[in-house]
Amino acid sequence: MDAARYYGQEDIRVEDIEPDSVGPEQVRIDIEACGICGSDLHEYTAGPIFVPGDAPHPVSGATAPLTMGHEFSGIVSEVGADVTDFSEGDAVTANPIIYCGSCPRCEAGQYHQCEALGFTGLAANGGFAENVVVDAERTVSLGEVPVEHGALVEPLSVALHAARVADVSAGDSVAVFGSGPIGLCQIQALRAAGAGPIIVSEPRDERRARADASGADVLIDPTEQDPLEAIRAETGEGVDIAFDVAGVEATYNQAINSTRPGGRVAEVSIFEEALETQPNDLVIPERSIVGSIAYQGGPRSGEEFGMVIDMLEDGQLDPDPLITDRIDLADISEDGFEPLLDPDSDQVKILVKP
Amino acid sequence: MDAARYYGQEDIRVEDIEPDSVGPEQVRIDIEACGICGSDLHEYTAGPIFVPGDAPHPVSGATAPLTMGHEFSGIVSEVGADVTDFSEGDAVTANPIIYCGSCPRCEAGQYHQCEALGFTGLAANGGFAENVVVDAERTVSLGEVPVEHGALVEPLSVALHAARVADVSAGDSVAVFGSGPIGLCQIQALRAAGAGPIIVSEPRDERRARADASGADVLIDPTEQDPLEAIRAETGEGVDIAFDVAGVEATYNQAINSTRPGGRVAEVSIFEEALETQPNDLVIPERSIVGSIAYQGGPRSGEEFGMVIDMLEDGQLDPDPLITDRIDLADISEDGFEPLLDPDSDQVKILVKP
Repeated sequence: MDAARYYGQEDIRVEDIEPDSVGPEQVRIDIEACGICGSDLHEYTAGPIFVPGDAPHPVSGATAPLTMGHEFSGIVSEVGADVTDFSEGDAVTANPIIYCGSCPRCEAGQYHQCEALGFTGLAANGGFAENVVVDAERTVSLGEVPVEHGALVEPLSVALHAARVADVSAGDSVAVFGSGPIGLCQIQALRAAGAGPIIVSEPRDERRARADASGADVLIDPTEQDPLEAIRAETGEGVDIAFDVAGVEATYNQAINSTRPGGRVAEVSIFEEALETQPNDLVIPERSIVGSIAYQGGPRSGEEFGMVIDMLEDGQLDPDPLITDRIDLADISEDGFEPLLDPDSDQVKILVKP
Repeated sequence: MDAARYYGQEDIRVEDIEPDSVGPEQVRIDIEACGICGSDLHEYTAGPIFVPGDAPHPVSGATAPLTMGHEFSGIVSEVGADVTDFSEGDAVTANPIIYCGSCPRCEAGQYHQCEALGFTGLAANGGFAENVVVDAERTVSLGEVPVEHGALVEPLSVALHAARVADVSAGDSVAVFGSGPIGLCQIQALRAAGAGPIIVSEPRDERRARADASGADVLIDPTEQDPLEAIRAETGEGVDIAFDVAGVEATYNQAINSTRPGGRVAEVSIFEEALETQPNDLVIPERSIVGSIAYQGGPRSGEEFGMVIDMLEDGQLDPDPLITDRIDLADISEDGFEPLLDPDSDQVKILVKP
């Protein structure tokens, strides 16, 4: 079958490979859609980061080259001998987290904090292919959610997790720095959590329009106004909670300084480089920063993936403003990675349809 | 009377000044002891920081030159006409926080997060003098605590506050980076909170010995061993909570990386300059940092000052390992500031006895 394989920086090749075989506790999923994620772009421009480049991943045993893609949905087409919860024809997504199961964090049920944390599609063959093989215990039924929307469950879970890690309460004022794919998911998760006003700082016109469609209350173009002054004008002393989903020095420090004394920041980005900051901005106003990665849910998969699927069924989350293109697997570099890396492009979430 | 006045960087002068007069809701305290604080040293080497250099402080109206010293205790010697809670001869300390009383943080009872936060002894005349005049509502009875020990209530309250902000539970493993005066107070507050093991990283031999006397369980000399390796060896995956009380780039980043995934850092330092950090160290293991400043307690003063006095009465806190010298006011520069700024000195907490 055809699969998009990561070989190294700026080297992704669509190749004909032998599909993986299905173990007794696994299922094969024929891919309906697989989104290109910011993490994939980080691997493309600055990787390998999560992809095991030199040594095999301690849990999966995989090393590059491997098939990328961790935001996928599809239809079960083959079921292992010991699997009882799924049948051929089921519409599913899968929680891509790979964890060791035996470190102190896994024993505490915090699989996403595993010291060997990996992801299907980064540390094992993923969804940029005609099909993918995953453990049944990490497979999640999509219920009434359209199969294609299942490819958005993963990024929406990242945002829901960040809202939960940041302990958002209904009525909290919030700022979101960046409205790329995770930023738009963050706005939706914050709207679902009852936060408001939701103030979004984003330099690109098209992304601000999508932020508006996702539920932002106040839009700031940081190339036109100082976002800190604009947020202060809107809230008086600053927001209760800020979310940095851009992951650069400017937004890291803006997120801190946009919050009121005693406020907090959720950092939801992977950074390609170190940055400069003055910790007095945290200390003197007693602000805090908390890092948020991935989503909870290990064996039996439910938790935040299941919450997102419920919220999609209820209409609390809406994938449509996120999706900007659907492309063929063969065109993943030219029509996928390249436009997403072009600062003048209007693309946000591109779904690969193998 | 004689008083030590701050004029600017490296310019503190002992001068004969007119004592302030006592208003109807104020008391005069004849100083028994007043500690030299790290904040005083920051003002000396890199100030004015908290001292109003150019414009008058928005609440106190004071500008440099002013009398320094915010860690003081003594005996009430004059009582304003409307004061009913104190009498001449009472042994007291005072909560030095100056706050506006009308900003959103003050209205929420978080006076120490006031946007106009100041301190008696930094933004109004303080305790490096024969006497000081303070509001009765910020004066606190020392109960059975020896009067001289009252000068340690302020730094011990900083440490108790940090332990409370960091949400320390009995049994939490903790690391403390630095065992200067606040570091030693932090160790004592953590011991009182039931934390353990208490692991302390401090390069100076004499300070490690005092950390030992204050209740540290494990002592690390970071010039001899990598503190992160030593902490990992002791705890397996890192400590639950780290306290940075040194306030430099190295300890900021060590504190983060000394914690387990999901762990947290309390930042209890004022930084003289910006630093470099890689936020992935927070994001990927979902660590958090919280800033801690001063202590809670506005009008009627009690709260953390009162808790510390109770804990001193009960023997849960012990000021003696902190005190390294007692000096005359006239010698404050040569025998106070200068040895405290000398990296080869064994001084920790010097009490000025006017």
